[in-house]
Amino acid sequence: MAAELLALYGYWRSSAVYRVRIALNLKGLHYETRPVHLLRDGGEQHGEAYRALNPQQLIPCLRDGERVITQSMAIMEYLEETVPEPPLLPADARSRARVRALALAVACDIHPLGNLRVLQYLEGRLGAGEAQKLAWSRHWIETGFDALEAMLEGNSATGRYCHGDTPGLADACLVPQVYNALRWQLPMDRWPTIARIHAACNELEAFQEAMPERQPDAP
Amino acid sequence: MAAELLALYGYWRSSAVYRVRIALNLKGLHYETRPVHLLRDGGEQHGEAYRALNPQQLIPCLRDGERVITQSMAIMEYLEETVPEPPLLPADARSRARVRALALAVACDIHPLGNLRVLQYLEGRLGAGEAQKLAWSRHWIETGFDALEAMLEGNSATGRYCHGDTPGLADACLVPQVYNALRWQLPMDRWPTIARIHAACNELEAFQEAMPERQPDAP
Repeated sequence: MAAELLALYGYWRSSAVYRVRIALNLKGLHYETRPVHLLRDGGEQHGEAYRALNPQQLIPCLRDGERVITQSMAIMEYLEETVPEPPLLPADARSRARVRALALAVACDIHPLGNLRVLQYLEGRLGAGEAQKLAWSRHWIETGFDALEAMLEGNSATGRYCHGDTPGLADACLVPQVYNALRWQLPMDRWPTIARIHAACNELEAFQEAMPERQPDAP
Repeated sequence: MAAELLALYGYWRSSAVYRVRIALNLKGLHYETRPVHLLRDGGEQHGEAYRALNPQQLIPCLRDGERVITQSMAIMEYLEETVPEPPLLPADARSRARVRALALAVACDIHPLGNLRVLQYLEGRLGAGEAQKLAWSRHWIETGFDALEAMLEGNSATGRYCHGDTPGLADACLVPQVYNALRWQLPMDRWPTIARIHAACNELEAFQEAMPERQPDAP
């Protein structure tokens, strides 16, 4: 794979793209950033050029030579299969399931509810104001983080990171969701284990370089 | 794994549990059904007994002997790794990524928005009436199925099922979502490829036996 062009299509502040940047960095892979502006011209993800790459009109999407891979979780599993070292998942099936469950607790149960298109629907079709949208966003993060904290805290498999002392798939999902929670000014002291893991991850260059503000399309 | 007790905790009508039933049936695995009633007593998933198994308080969860696996997508990947035959994923990385992306287009982008807890919030906190909740549910299925239809239709990898002529992970996610769409009386003729694959899947015993109405806790 390394010989081919690797390009990530996304938007600097998108959680799902942020995840993939972390995974690419953890793998030590170099890639080009191809910005897709979610707000310009009604959303560049709906434009003809991007739809030809990803008919789902969502970000991210990864080009690996002629291959186009969509869906952040599928992209990370693809990276894991094509570039096995360093691994994003542990070796045994039980541990792999735990890490995937932690990742999916973010990717399926928190993030989809706080998406831009969902907030746009709440405002446009249900007349939700700013305070109601904020309460909505916070509610799903709080519910999800309460669950994640319970899954992490007191489980002997939890280490410096979500699973042991090696950062991986679950951390790549958790850190962007904490970034999002901080944006909505949620006090993280309610979830000490999540906050601790978030801080540990952000000491690593792979996570630092993936931060939204460091991306070429950040304002 | 086959020697151990395999038990699936869930609710007959839950899409996420329905997926796992299909996967277990496709693998030819026998399992016990452990009903968790989502509506009784404020939701049995929030009760002490179930929380001890799954602190996330969501279904499904699979017991494999002493192991407890949560999150439907993680459970299916776990089954794939522990019982490789027959496979739910194709062999090559590019095709595996396609199947996972199709599955995740349901699991991340449609299903989380139509969940019971989300509809409860819309009603209880945003004052949405029946018509508004129905419009919401339909909107996210329509948006998601438009995307899925575009991903499936005209892609040479699509066969009798979502990927080729063997049913797998993407079909296990798609069929429960179509079941849900039919419950909301969405006319499926807008998505001919999805409708065709749905019909093909439901000719198979693995899918028939997974149907909600056939479960022991169905009314």
